[in-house]
Amino acid sequence: MIVQKMTFELPQYTTRNGALLKRVRVGWESYGTLDRERSNAILVTHYFSATSHAAGRYTAHDVLPGYWDAIIGPGKTIDTNRFFVLSSDTLVNLNARDPQVITTGPASIDPDTGARYGMSFPIVSIHDFIQLQKALVESLGIKRLHAVVGPSMGALQAYQWAQSYPDMVSRIMPVIGAAGGDPFLIAWLDIWAQPVRLDPKWRSGNYPESDPPVEGLTAALKTVTLHANQSEWAASFGRAPAAPGCDPAQALSHRFMIEDAVGQLAAMRAVTADANNFLYLIKANQLACADPQQIKVPTLILYSPTDLLFPQPWIERTAAAIREAGTPIDMAPLHGPNGHLNGVLHIAQASERIAGFLTE
Amino acid sequence: MIVQKMTFELPQYTTRNGALLKRVRVGWESYGTLDRERSNAILVTHYFSATSHAAGRYTAHDVLPGYWDAIIGPGKTIDTNRFFVLSSDTLVNLNARDPQVITTGPASIDPDTGARYGMSFPIVSIHDFIQLQKALVESLGIKRLHAVVGPSMGALQAYQWAQSYPDMVSRIMPVIGAAGGDPFLIAWLDIWAQPVRLDPKWRSGNYPESDPPVEGLTAALKTVTLHANQSEWAASFGRAPAAPGCDPAQALSHRFMIEDAVGQLAAMRAVTADANNFLYLIKANQLACADPQQIKVPTLILYSPTDLLFPQPWIERTAAAIREAGTPIDMAPLHGPNGHLNGVLHIAQASERIAGFLTE
Repeated sequence: MIVQKMTFELPQYTTRNGALLKRVRVGWESYGTLDRERSNAILVTHYFSATSHAAGRYTAHDVLPGYWDAIIGPGKTIDTNRFFVLSSDTLVNLNARDPQVITTGPASIDPDTGARYGMSFPIVSIHDFIQLQKALVESLGIKRLHAVVGPSMGALQAYQWAQSYPDMVSRIMPVIGAAGGDPFLIAWLDIWAQPVRLDPKWRSGNYPESDPPVEGLTAALKTVTLHANQSEWAASFGRAPAAPGCDPAQALSHRFMIEDAVGQLAAMRAVTADANNFLYLIKANQLACADPQQIKVPTLILYSPTDLLFPQPWIERTAAAIREAGTPIDMAPLHGPNGHLNGVLHIAQASERIAGFLTE
Repeated sequence: MIVQKMTFELPQYTTRNGALLKRVRVGWESYGTLDRERSNAILVTHYFSATSHAAGRYTAHDVLPGYWDAIIGPGKTIDTNRFFVLSSDTLVNLNARDPQVITTGPASIDPDTGARYGMSFPIVSIHDFIQLQKALVESLGIKRLHAVVGPSMGALQAYQWAQSYPDMVSRIMPVIGAAGGDPFLIAWLDIWAQPVRLDPKWRSGNYPESDPPVEGLTAALKTVTLHANQSEWAASFGRAPAAPGCDPAQALSHRFMIEDAVGQLAAMRAVTADANNFLYLIKANQLACADPQQIKVPTLILYSPTDLLFPQPWIERTAAAIREAGTPIDMAPLHGPNGHLNGVLHIAQASERIAGFLTE
């Protein structure tokens, strides 16, 4: 399944806070065909460090497909022979330096000044993300989405969709996410942000494009990478040294293999990431607070019992509040060695449940 | 109970790695009286960010007593009318700038040069910590400890005591700790360290005493503070803004109260902490790896079911390995809203269990 990135642009958009943005652009891609009644569309909302690339490959030579390719495609769980699946980059997307990502945020050029917005960019929220998605969906003539589905920050968006536009969405499937930011998660997101602020190259947000705060951003993405995973994954590295013969007991600079592995994963992610977008994205997640009691559309929640970011008890509280409101709701666990990331890497185990939910 | 800090000094000490240190000094304090047979001594081993101040007050005006004062004192669970309780500062103690702390580490003066050791200080491990404790205990004429007890890093020391000197310790009570550093914890400890390394004032460890990397160290201690706590504690701050009228939704710099609370706790701790000692202490914890199958003395493990640093399943694995070796072992949970810190703040709930174990 070869996919192509497209651009959606609004000449102007007023944020939830009342700030006017001109020429707002986000990238999007789709899989499958919109039917004549325009009734078979499923919107996929992406997670914190992801993009609109939910499935397929841009070229036949791509090493990896989109993140939920295991369940999206012809004949798969979310069957693109039947559904028109679409996904868009959020505002302030983390991967602003990825040529396949189109997003508007601090790393974008302000049409009024011709310079990058930087810290002059207004605060945006999950609500703004879904307003853009709504405009995109409406531009395609779609009046009602068959479903909104997404993991983690994608779950935050799915909950907000159900609350804000109940007439436009028939069901939601939030994966590895509660309805809003628990104070503990708010504090952890601040921990994620601090290495960027500490890097002198961040320059209070005024770094040149040619000399960004790579070290701070890499350190920050190490925290994100580890926090989204779990000990069963880390255990596979054991207590081996990062380099043969360099015993970690012998020098402060001799590291364990697990430390290097996290560093390498983060360094790869930092190549396409932007530091200011990262800070704005953190703020958007801290502000997330959909009200589960206002969710009235059928809901299937998938969760990971070993999740450190959205622990099972928080998700159960969200589910209980939805249930109290009289809304049909179901829950199923996602097992695996990867904690939070079980919702991305091991989503296929819930295929039957998902397929059933989509045809109810 | 007014207590006084004392100093224990070895003219020279060779580390586990073979490095020779001259004039090694650690502080220690004690509660109760050593009996004539010198058979009533209990050693308390302290946690990562603590000192030898386990109980009592230095002056009648001290706001807070030592961290386990709830269970150590005359007539208390660890009854100082009966036991002689002693506790010493570890090597590379975090709080090197606390006038009540006496420790040898990177922040100390190298007698050979007259300058601070800095990064020339050799790597030390939990094993070195207990070798110093053993020398202190022997200097008091104590041949056998009635018990070694301690939380978190104190648990790592208790396990190592039982493994290394089984003839010198009658029982151990490791609290909120597994026998060794799980690879996931090794990676998290590296996350704790990174803000220090990112602070330009760290200067690769060569900062002057008058201008230390306070910002990086405070950021690091924010991570430690949050990681050792839990969501039930954070929930008490709700989603309130840090300052009235400064809605976090309106500006990147407007923070939530929980973010500020963590920052303030960390800033207080940073006043007495040393950045290089912090890095060396992290290394010591990464290297911890007692072998539970070699533990042959009766063991009582207390754990917190919501612990994020030493999760219950890890502690259960340690307990299972000790049990397999045929050693008497018992476990009990410590409940409370503070995650890992339940082992410090809510230790008193296990009083009956502890008292029973100490008189078995």
